[in-house]
Amino acid sequence: MYLETINAPADIRDYTAEQRRILAREMREALIERTSLIGGHIGPNLGIIEATIALHTVFDSPRDKIIFDVSHQCYPHKMLTGRVGAYTRAAEYHDVSGFTNTDESEHDLFNIGHTSTGISLAAGLAKARNLAGGTENVVVVIGDGAMSGGEALEGLNVIGEMGTNFIIVFNDNDQSISENHGGMYAKFKEMRETNGQAEDNLFRALGLRYRYVADGNDAEELIRVFSEEKDSTSPVVIHIHTIKGKGLSFAEADPEGWHRHAPFHVETGIAKNESHPDPYAVATVDFVLDAARRNPNFVYLSAGIVGGINLSPAERAELGSQYVDVGIAEEHAVAMASGLAKAGARPIFGTYSTFFQRTYDQMSQDVAINRNPAVFLATGTSLYRSTDVTHLGFYDISIFSNIPNLVHLAPTSVAEHIAVLRWAVEQTEYPVMIRMPFTGYVESPYPVRTDYSALNKSIVVTEGADVALIGVGNFAALASEAAEELARERIHATVVNPLYLSGLDEELLDSLREKHSLILTVEDGILAGGFGQKVASFYARTGDVRVLTYGLPKAFFNRYNPDELARRYHLTAPQIAADVLRELA
Amino acid sequence: MYLETINAPADIRDYTAEQRRILAREMREALIERTSLIGGHIGPNLGIIEATIALHTVFDSPRDKIIFDVSHQCYPHKMLTGRVGAYTRAAEYHDVSGFTNTDESEHDLFNIGHTSTGISLAAGLAKARNLAGGTENVVVVIGDGAMSGGEALEGLNVIGEMGTNFIIVFNDNDQSISENHGGMYAKFKEMRETNGQAEDNLFRALGLRYRYVADGNDAEELIRVFSEEKDSTSPVVIHIHTIKGKGLSFAEADPEGWHRHAPFHVETGIAKNESHPDPYAVATVDFVLDAARRNPNFVYLSAGIVGGINLSPAERAELGSQYVDVGIAEEHAVAMASGLAKAGARPIFGTYSTFFQRTYDQMSQDVAINRNPAVFLATGTSLYRSTDVTHLGFYDISIFSNIPNLVHLAPTSVAEHIAVLRWAVEQTEYPVMIRMPFTGYVESPYPVRTDYSALNKSIVVTEGADVALIGVGNFAALASEAAEELARERIHATVVNPLYLSGLDEELLDSLREKHSLILTVEDGILAGGFGQKVASFYARTGDVRVLTYGLPKAFFNRYNPDELARRYHLTAPQIAADVLRELA
Repeated sequence: MYLETINAPADIRDYTAEQRRILAREMREALIERTSLIGGHIGPNLGIIEATIALHTVFDSPRDKIIFDVSHQCYPHKMLTGRVGAYTRAAEYHDVSGFTNTDESEHDLFNIGHTSTGISLAAGLAKARNLAGGTENVVVVIGDGAMSGGEALEGLNVIGEMGTNFIIVFNDNDQSISENHGGMYAKFKEMRETNGQAEDNLFRALGLRYRYVADGNDAEELIRVFSEEKDSTSPVVIHIHTIKGKGLSFAEADPEGWHRHAPFHVETGIAKNESHPDPYAVATVDFVLDAARRNPNFVYLSAGIVGGINLSPAERAELGSQYVDVGIAEEHAVAMASGLAKAGARPIFGTYSTFFQRTYDQMSQDVAINRNPAVFLATGTSLYRSTDVTHLGFYDISIFSNIPNLVHLAPTSVAEHIAVLRWAVEQTEYPVMIRMPFTGYVESPYPVRTDYSALNKSIVVTEGADVALIGVGNFAALASEAAEELARERIHATVVNPLYLSGLDEELLDSLREKHSLILTVEDGILAGGFGQKVASFYARTGDVRVLTYGLPKAFFNRYNPDELARRYHLTAPQIAADVLRELA
Repeated sequence: MYLETINAPADIRDYTAEQRRILAREMREALIERTSLIGGHIGPNLGIIEATIALHTVFDSPRDKIIFDVSHQCYPHKMLTGRVGAYTRAAEYHDVSGFTNTDESEHDLFNIGHTSTGISLAAGLAKARNLAGGTENVVVVIGDGAMSGGEALEGLNVIGEMGTNFIIVFNDNDQSISENHGGMYAKFKEMRETNGQAEDNLFRALGLRYRYVADGNDAEELIRVFSEEKDSTSPVVIHIHTIKGKGLSFAEADPEGWHRHAPFHVETGIAKNESHPDPYAVATVDFVLDAARRNPNFVYLSAGIVGGINLSPAERAELGSQYVDVGIAEEHAVAMASGLAKAGARPIFGTYSTFFQRTYDQMSQDVAINRNPAVFLATGTSLYRSTDVTHLGFYDISIFSNIPNLVHLAPTSVAEHIAVLRWAVEQTEYPVMIRMPFTGYVESPYPVRTDYSALNKSIVVTEGADVALIGVGNFAALASEAAEELARERIHATVVNPLYLSGLDEELLDSLREKHSLILTVEDGILAGGFGQKVASFYARTGDVRVLTYGLPKAFFNRYNPDELARRYHLTAPQIAADVLRELA
């Protein structure tokens, strides 16, 4: 076996074509076995094995700089750069992350998880090289839909006038996560069909040279082309056509379903564990389909990840023209939602919290200043969701609750979430952003309102005294559980569901002074700039009520255990109850 | 005179060519006279007079939707849509804003001030029209460098597969604010030189049809082409070549200097009032030139607005390859700065606070997660700077101080600003963002440190008791002035310069408890998510010290009087002193 003997890229540099062929087969087998056991981004990585072998044969990493965008295509790269055990030995599978990671290897230049960043990051490496008089190659591998993102397009335009060594390997597998969208992809198809000869080449239009490799899974051809471009002195795009999922029949046949996959039976492709559909997402999909039937001007916008609620191909087909996938282009999606709302349509744009981060300016300028009543649905907004540092979903309160005019809501249960969503879509006064619940209540333990027009009205869930627990969104249930723990100690806490993140119910907060000397806020997000600090600031004016804020510190976390993280910051009911007992003692 | 008789676009629809010629002349004269008296975006608007006449002759606004991107080119549009008095009668000059404004007219669809948003906003209008079965035209006028922004490029790509009426008028005057940058502009030049026939057309590459109009200041030719495209059923780009500053010789000769201009003598083009250079910007420019001389790996990045510190053509020339203008592409600039820092260069990227809003995700993902020690210089960070709702500079504390790993600093004087900047560029541990001071101290009244590596160490400027005033950045001087007012009443306040926005000096705050029962925070920004709320939250845990937070409420403001706004929110020394006296009474 070749694979297990590779400690560094230099080990494969003198391989023969036959050795490379065997190596590719071994890598493919290892990837399939590993994914069948622990899941992962299988489709993209199967497609890019040969290109990765070719890159590490021709270029001299880490002296030459190779950047992967989006870096979920980095598994073959990690196999060839000193981390092979993490792909061949089950006990070491979890030693590496699913993205390039600067802590793991000098061959990983950046921690990259969001798409479309690689060209711009690498532009900095290239410029620094030029200033220092260096001669190393700068190579960016970009694909899986990343090309349509604004940051990537800005980067292409800047590189187009750099006039310096800069090699972009455009990995075109005709897919982002779901199908590709946007005018450029029709043209890329034309380019594939004409062996790269089609007119009106996007890359040349931006000032770059262009080459086409029809079989991007042919390592020998790739080595030939990469060798010709190595040390070239003007920027070039090498467009390689690869097969997403290559070598795994199920993945080749269903590239969307196998972009990322849970553990599966290798013989049948059937998932090993039944998937547990998220009840919040299921209810949201039902709501969306129903809203589309009721109102021909309702439209659901997605930016390349099936709306953040995993709309199936059948559901997208049912929505028809009332579903728009703009590709990976979140900024565009937010602005487009504003335009839709301005013209009387009723849009929802849904995506993960971590990707909404890209849209601060659009949310502020295009939406909020214009007060256009578009609806934004943020998913994955919890410390219990993605634990990769590049995909954390708990910074959004501090981002979006501080934008004027935007109504930011954190419902606590399926019923409240759908009620809030229905109100948001029906009203036409406010732009609204909703944090889709993740953990916490499925059934609401208390009555759910239908009208949310009286902004910032919080609800007292349980009447008590001495201490009040304000549990935000996902953590409303946590606040109630803590109150139950306290009740066993004969402390009868008040529990409040604030719902509104974008404003305080000052009347309610004022009234709490009468019977309470201690207030706790509990939110599923960072404290800095968040909800609790607003409550604390309210009471700090008078100092007559003490406020303890519960949430996460302002920090990045990577591949953590969510339960451990929650315990570390006292985000469990027993810890909160114990803290209250100590404070009241 | 035709101009003064125009109340609505319908009034010009039956004009003859000769009447339009005269109208254009009258509009040009009015624009020049108005700008000579009150200043404004003269260059862009002189260039787009004929195109605006043609648009309002061919299309039926507001039924047809015309969107201006960037909307500082909207003066001629306002003249033809019921607001002519604001351009012909000095007493009414200030009745309109310098941007499209939904409060002013139904002909203004959006409040637009940031570039590159128009195509995406209009995509929403077009989609809403399609859902509703409407037939109106959707027209976007884009130019002045806006095409290189990521949101515009994302929008083009999405429009490219819409297959529906969508007319983009690309106003190409070969300039953004300074010269254009990026590979696309070389190609646009080729297109101008070949009458639109050059190969590798960017717009066609993205799926749009393309037409070229060589003389974009010929209203008759524009009317012919617009008429042909009116009611067309597939997206088209009409590339029109216009002369920025047309009809004003000084502006034609120096399009950068006359992009926006202060009041001037019409005969000579000489400014009426001597300009008062901003001492903070002047010192920063000196620092930058010096840093570049000392370190060949130092580089200053700009995104289309001469670095936010108005680097002159001579200064840019002196910087040579150590100055990079990426065009309007802030996201790219932030990521590129990260790459530069990673590779050992020492970059500063400077732009206005309002444009940094576009880069939350890049600052978090590309910079902060990677801990690359790039330096970011935010200018215009004050309620005393731009008062246009789309260009406000006081939201940045709540945005950037809440990003982990990013050191966010608010120096208080020229000396402290330069000391902080020098430290930021020399150290290689932290990404750093600096709020360049605007108002407040020029000379520092207290000693300035040279090393800022001990993060979050605040400085006690004046030792006192009972009340402590924590004055942030620009408002450090305000805190000291309030302390002086209080001293007259025999209250000796402590004054603190926190400097660090991204973390609290908890040791100092703890020690303040001993002699102080009241703390005031004063910041030149919104309170929500800002610095004061963090201080308040710190003390609210114990409730033994009261905290009053001074700053702006979370709201948008438009064309306000800064002094009035400051008074409304008690951001003056006498008001603060009076408040303290009342609180301590």
